This record gives sequence, C-alpha cells and structure tokens, in this order.
Amino acid sequence: MTDTAPSRTGAQSLVETFVNAGVDVCFANPGTSEMHFVAALDTHPDMRCILGLFEGVVTGAADGYGRMKGTPAATLLHLGPGVGNGLANLHNAKKARTPVVNVIGDHATYHRRFDAPLTSDVEGIARPVSDWVKVSKSADEVAADGALAVQAALSAPGQVASLILPADTAWNETRAGAKTRNETLAPTSPLAIDSTAVDDAAKALSSGAKAVIFLRMTLTEELLKWADRIAAATGATLVSDTFVGRTERGAGRPYAMRLPYFGEQAEEALVGTRHLVVVGGEPPVTFFAYPGKANELTPAGCEVHRLVPPNGDIQGTLEALAHAVGATSTAFRPVELELPSAPTGTLTPKAIGAAMARTMPDHTIVINESGTSGGGVEPLTRKARPHDWLGLTGGSIGFGLPAATGAAVACPDRKVLCLQADGSGMYTLQALWTQAREKLDVTTVVFSNRKYAILQHEFARVGAHNPGPKALSMLDLGNPDLNWVSLADGMGVPAERVDTAEGFTSALERALAYKGPALIEAVL
Amino acid sequence: MTDTAPSRTGAQSLVETFVNAGVDVCFANPGTSEMHFVAALDTHPDMRCILGLFEGVVTGAADGYGRMKGTPAATLLHLGPGVGNGLANLHNAKKARTPVVNVIGDHATYHRRFDAPLTSDVEGIARPVSDWVKVSKSADEVAADGALAVQAALSAPGQVASLILPADTAWNETRAGAKTRNETLAPTSPLAIDSTAVDDAAKALSSGAKAVIFLRMTLTEELLKWADRIAAATGATLVSDTFVGRTERGAGRPYAMRLPYFGEQAEEALVGTRHLVVVGGEPPVTFFAYPGKANELTPAGCEVHRLVPPNGDIQGTLEALAHAVGATSTAFRPVELELPSAPTGTLTPKAIGAAMARTMPDHTIVINESGTSGGGVEPLTRKARPHDWLGLTGGSIGFGLPAATGAAVACPDRKVLCLQADGSGMYTLQALWTQAREKLDVTTVVFSNRKYAILQHEFARVGAHNPGPKALSMLDLGNPDLNWVSLADGMGVPAERVDTAEGFTSALERALAYKGPALIEAVL
Repeated sequence: MTDTAPSRTGAQSLVETFVNAGVDVCFANPGTSEMHFVAALDTHPDMRCILGLFEGVVTGAADGYGRMKGTPAATLLHLGPGVGNGLANLHNAKKARTPVVNVIGDHATYHRRFDAPLTSDVEGIARPVSDWVKVSKSADEVAADGALAVQAALSAPGQVASLILPADTAWNETRAGAKTRNETLAPTSPLAIDSTAVDDAAKALSSGAKAVIFLRMTLTEELLKWADRIAAATGATLVSDTFVGRTERGAGRPYAMRLPYFGEQAEEALVGTRHLVVVGGEPPVTFFAYPGKANELTPAGCEVHRLVPPNGDIQGTLEALAHAVGATSTAFRPVELELPSAPTGTLTPKAIGAAMARTMPDHTIVINESGTSGGGVEPLTRKARPHDWLGLTGGSIGFGLPAATGAAVACPDRKVLCLQADGSGMYTLQALWTQAREKLDVTTVVFSNRKYAILQHEFARVGAHNPGPKALSMLDLGNPDLNWVSLADGMGVPAERVDTAEGFTSALERALAYKGPALIEAVL
Repeated sequence: MTDTAPSRTGAQSLVETFVNAGVDVCFANPGTSEMHFVAALDTHPDMRCILGLFEGVVTGAADGYGRMKGTPAATLLHLGPGVGNGLANLHNAKKARTPVVNVIGDHATYHRRFDAPLTSDVEGIARPVSDWVKVSKSADEVAADGALAVQAALSAPGQVASLILPADTAWNETRAGAKTRNETLAPTSPLAIDSTAVDDAAKALSSGAKAVIFLRMTLTEELLKWADRIAAATGATLVSDTFVGRTERGAGRPYAMRLPYFGEQAEEALVGTRHLVVVGGEPPVTFFAYPGKANELTPAGCEVHRLVPPNGDIQGTLEALAHAVGATSTAFRPVELELPSAPTGTLTPKAIGAAMARTMPDHTIVINESGTSGGGVEPLTRKARPHDWLGLTGGSIGFGLPAATGAAVACPDRKVLCLQADGSGMYTLQALWTQAREKLDVTTVVFSNRKYAILQHEFARVGAHNPGPKALSMLDLGNPDLNWVSLADGMGVPAERVDTAEGFTSALERALAYKGPALIEAVL
C-alpha cells in the first residue's frame, strides 16, 4: 500500500497490518484509551477478538496460542497497570521464547505529562518482560510500527514485542496505508551455523567419554529426531530443560529425559558427565539457590560445549552435527505406545496420570501447571499416544488456565487438557469464563491438595526447619477449602468433584468425550 | 540495639525492626525465595501475617490498611512476577499516597546473574510504582534497610517503599541488631508553610471574585473543617478531587463537592471560577483525553494559586490561611443527618444508595469501586451517618475487594461495606477467600450489571460511534453471566442474590447485622 491510501484511523491501519501479517487473533482487556482499537476490530472481518476478564488471562492465552501456533497473537492491554496485571504471564512467554505482540494503550501524547490517575511509566513497566518495545509517535507511524512489532515477535526463536499506542495515535486519521504481508514478514534470520562449535561438539561426542546433550529449546518432533540420531550414534544421553515451552512427546517420538527440578536430583542425573553439549542456551542452574548447596549444575571436571545459542539455527546446527558424527542415516528411537493399567482406589497424581494416559486422544495438548503433583503424572504419560506438553517456563504461577485457553483457540480441532494445581489455579481463574464464552474444548483437572505443597518442601530445603503456626498458615490453602465446582459454576463451566481413581477415570472420560469446557476437581 | 546482638538471620532482624516500628501486619503471598522471612514471622509474637491467594489481593489490602491506619502494613511478594501481579494496586496506593512497605524476595545475590526461570529485573519492575526502592546487599544491612523503608513509607504525605531482599540476605546470620522504634521513626518532615503562597491565596479568596478551593488530599474531618471555615468566611466553594484516597463524610462533617468524572461536567462545575486555590497538588485535568475536548480543566481566565504541595504541611497551611482570611473562629458547616425514604420496586444504584444510607451504622468504612453505579450511590449517602469513603485513586481496577480486606484488618471494630462493580470485581476476586479465612467483617455488594458500563459510555465519548458486534462483545460481561453467589461460595463467603429494592434492603440489613464476611449480588 502507498501513502495515498484512503484516510482511516491509526488503529484501523494497525488492525489491517496485523491481519495482513497473519496476526488475526487478539486477546483483549481494553479500557477507554483502547476504544479506537476496539472500534477498528469491526473494520476487518478476519480479526478475531477474545475478551479476558483479567490481563493475566489475556497474556497467558497469547503465550499458549503462540507456543502452539508458532506465530503471535496480539494482546490488548490498558496502560501501565494493564501491563502489570499481564506481566507474570509475559515473563513466562519471554522465557518460553513465545512470539507475542502486545498492543498497550496509553494516554494521548499530549495528556501523558499530567499526573492523571492512570498516568504511569508504561514503557518502564513493559520493558523488563519485553524483548522489543516501541512507543508510536503518530497515527502515520502506527502501521509501520505494527509491522516492526510483528517482525520482532517472529525473530528467532520468538520474542515478546510491546507496542505502546498513545490514544491519539489510534484515533487520529492517517493516509499511511497498512503494511502488506511482504512488508511485515521479514523477521531477523537465525544466526548462521557455527562450524567450529559443531566440530568441537562432534569431537566431544565421539571421544567415548560420558556425554549429555542438553536441550534448551522447544522440543518439536523434528528437532528431537535429529538430537536422538546424534545420541544414538554416539552413546550420549538426551536431557532436556526442566521446564520446556512445548514438547512433542509420547508414542512415536524420541524421548529426552527432563532434568529434575530439585538440585540434588539434577546433580545426580548429570553425575559423571565429561562433556555437556548445550543446545539453545547456557548450561543448567538450579531454579532457586539454597544455602550450602550448589546452584551451577555442570559437574566438576565436565567440559561445556555451547553448540548453538537460542537465536541460532538450531535445526541446521543439529543436522550439521549429525553429519559430523555420521548419524544422518541413524534411525531415531521412537517411544513405543504402552498404556498403564486402569488405576483403582485412592486418587493420587499417579492414578491421574494413568487415567490420562489411557484416555487422552491422539494429539491432545497438555498444559502442565500441576506443581508437585506433576511428578506423579509425567512418567505415567511418557508412553501415551502422541501429545504436546507445555510447561511453566518462567516459574510465574497462574499460567495453566490462560495458556489452555490460548492453545484451544490456536488448535480448535485438538483436545486441550489442563493440569492445574489449586494454588496456582487461583491466580488466573478468570480464564474459565473465557473458555465458557468461546466454548473452547478444554478439560481442566484441578489437583486439589489444598496447600502450596512445593513451599512445604522448599521450607525445609532452604534450611528453615520446624515451621511455626504462622509459617504453616502461609503454606496451607485450607480454612476454608476452596470449592472449585462452585468457582467453575460461577463462570459457566460445568464441573464435578471426584476423590477416587475410578471416579476420576469416568469423569475424565466424560469430559474428554464432551466438546467444550469442563472442570474436574480431583481431591487428593 | 548494638551490633553485638545475638546472631540471627537477616529476616529475623527485619521482622523485629518492623514490629519495633509499628509495622506489625504483613499481607503475604510468598514463594521459595521468601521462606526465611516466613520462618522469621514466628520469632516475633506481635507480627501478624495474612495470606492472599494472589498478589493483587496482598497489595490492595496493604493500600486499604494504610489508608485507614495512617501507618504502613508490609507486603511480602515473590520476585519480579510477584511485584507484577501486585503492581496495579500499588499504582493505586502510590496515587493515594498510602504508606506501604513492600518486601520483595529475589534470588540469592550470587544466583541473580544466571538466567534461571524466575530471574527478572525486580528493581525495574518495582520502580515505576514505588517512591523508594532499595536492594539489600547483605544480612548485616537488612535491619537498617528495613528501618529506611519504614521511614520512606511514612514520609509525608505517605509513600510506597520497596525493599528487595535477595534470599541470602534473609537467610544469612548477622549480629547487626534490629532497629529500635526511635531509630526507625524519623520520617521526612513535611515542607514548611509557604507564607507567600498563603498570602497570595488569602488575597485571591478575599477579592470577591468567584473562587474554588480545590482539595487534592486525604479528606479527614479535621482538614475539611479548616477548609470549610475558609470557604464559609470567604464565599469560596470547596471542590475535591474526583477520586480521593479517603474522605471522612456524612453527618457532622463539612461537605466538599466531588469534581465530576466526565470532563464536560467537570468544566461545568468550575465555570466562571476566577481563582482556583489548589491544596495538595496540581490543577485538575480530565481522567483521559478525548478527541476535540479539553483535558485541562482550569477555566480560561482563571488564576491558579498553588497553596501547598502534596508533601507540604497541609493542615498548618490551611490554619495559616484561615488566620489570614479571618476565619479561625468561623464555624464550619456540618452536614445534617438526613436519611432517604425506604426504596421500593426496581433495584437501581439509587435504591442501593438509599438502603445503604438508612442501614449503615456509624463509622462504616465504605470502599467504593462501584464504577458507573457510583453516580447513583454517592449522592444518596451524602447525609448518612458519619462514615469513611475510600475511592479508586489510580484508576487500576481490582481495588475494591482487596482494599476492603485490608481496611477490615486495620479497623476490626468497624463495619466495612465494599461497593464493587462486577467487571472490576473479577480482577481480584480471590480477596473473598482471605476475608473468609480471617473472618473479616466485610459486606460486599456486587453491582451486577453484566457489562463494562463505563466503556459503553466511553466508546461514544472518544468519538468511536456505532460499535460493531466485535466491539460490543468487548464491552459486555454476559454470555455467560457471572454467578457471584457461586463464586463467593467457592471461597467460603456466604452470599445471596437480589433483584428488588426490598430484597436488597433486607439482605443488607442481614449482612450488616452479621459479624463476618458476606456478599450480596445486586442484579441491576
């Protein structure tokens, strides 16, 4: 388009630019300063807009959407406090390297100098959770800025881009046309393959000494196959990050062991390793530091080989490494389908994992924010039908319900199964309403253990023994117990409560057979 | 205390310092990096710690507490994302000039350089909503830093102070003793009275030209009396900010007209004013800017007189001005008790206001986040029994339920009545659980109109007419309707739904007669 396009608002030029670039879903919680963007939604038939009743829902949905789709959704956020409310899930998205485009409304350019109630340092709030930030200066620049935001979001391996839109840049008229698809989609290419790093890794892996290939990226089946060919040919072990944005997992896919969460167990998993070949990042550290315990997990005497950075050409590098170690025609080792037996009796995380593994249809998307219960569920589903597994990459709780919402929008033909701890579920429970409104095919399992179980573990692990009554009350969600059936009902999602393995299995079968949102409160 | 105190953890020295300084309530949502602070809570009998299931509850409660108490509560927040989740209500607290002390856990000093999942720019996230920020460097400095934080929070007129506590500064042992009350409580004094400004204002008010005294501070009865004596003696009109942190209001107190929210009405309220004497800030501007409408509200030809800045000696300045205009012995004009007649029929905001005015006991604390419904409630309660009225100072919605929680902790012998719009209520509904756990005496009225009514007004006001179906769906909370009775039940708060004036009146009477949390869903 040229700059002699018909006059329209800056917001309209932005919506059209987004749609041209394939950004045609917007998760939104707008306010007055975003009303022109909202008005512009109806000017383009291909833009879908989905309301969240809290910004943490909006940003978490964009994260889930981007992880599954590989292209960004837009968010619509209301000034600094709106970004603040969405910040925790943007933090997770940034750590997952999910492409996201935030549109953040601000006061009109000439109103920002006043200390009005909602005046805030929008840019300052957005920057810590954004890889790219820009403030639009005028309606004439909004379309071009929108194209830059999409480019930034799509730059390898995926980024959080935040475009701040003062209200008058949205409402003023402009003749600057929307950007076309070609003008928009020129994201930064990944870095070239580093052949020195490839040769170095090949030498290490061929040395015969114990080696680990440590995977710090989205684990698509394709990338896992290349990594597994290399591992099979060299005898190295595949280990993935503890929290991975998305893993293609289950029968037919190669298996990469997940690095355990607790440092001692992680050290155990890596003990004796002489060569650590790191793919897509830096060597592993513990989640938190603990008094008197190691936080760097590379064993003493182990040599670190940084094969490719996060923004490198990961697939090309793995292919080059396979070539260098003579593994290009090595067969990868698929996991064989093997379903656990039907669980009975007491409802435990393992029983839930067994029921899931038996019931999940092909290509289920599992959103995992099950907290401590995940240790039971994860191994039981390892050999289930092929599925995707989305993890809590940034440690910001309140990820599960919103990410499930976004994944269901991205993949309407797939079943979404959200494993949700009760403590973290309470952060962003408003997502259930969006699931009901949009009739999204999400089954939520709430692991109702009525405590912050992880903190009960961590309290002792940090060396603070014998908690007193006040400390105990900070780690406990009882008194009163949350009633998730009522909470779901309050937001229009049908729900039931179960407390036996058999009860859970039949509830899960019912929920997965039903097309639409459902919630199961699994009392543990 | 001296530096030969018995060895203890940095966290213990901080808890003792806080209690010594009168900061003996901590609203908390801790994580692993805060476990030593949690452990330290039990080492001091006078520290009360209250769990919130989301950080927006924690910070909003601290705001409500600080507004009522005049001294800060502490919050306990978990790294950058924890601050993010609490940011919107800290924004409101900062705009209200509420004293708050945030304790923000971070990774251990030696762990911060790694890109662990929860690594973030904690300081960068805290700064935009803090008046004071400090990162503790070692356990030896934590007590002194805590004292500085309390001093900062108490500095006139009240500030948000954020102390970032890397985990090892909390868990390491120190012999640096806790700070005593005297060592802590030396907040910055307010600025001295500006006698030139007083003389200038006195001259303006005595000129006979139409004058407005514009009040931008906490409206205690005492300050209102001084302002009203001046107004009575000079013929000036008292106008307050649209959103005031706390107003002592109702029978027996002087009345200050509240500047209307919408710019046109605000302009109307100030039309013809020749002298605007501003107390505690800058002249008024509109909340948002709108195309083609004025955003500065001082009428053309009106002279602005800045009497005293927010951190000035407001009471002393008003007394000096009263002296200068000869009003020291002028009687203030108390509002006379006058209760509306019992409402009947259709349930409207005015009916709710009438029922409130008739039912509220003396010294009820009203938390007002009623949104568009407030326009009905506010005038009806103007002549009710004396009460406090806490407003949404920063425009960040999700203030009501948490602030009510904190106000009830601050004033356990007073009734708290929370007027909560449904859209904003959904932001931080988790506060209801804390009210149930702590058995707080809060009655919540949810104004269930099932829409973002303010946005339906604002959509047209910004000049974006004829919303299409997508725009309309962004402004509407129906499909499905929220069921607040179920939501409250899910968190242990008894609730009922009413849809007539008579039904509301009797529900309100029941709730106010009951000591403990209750919720009324008022379907409008």
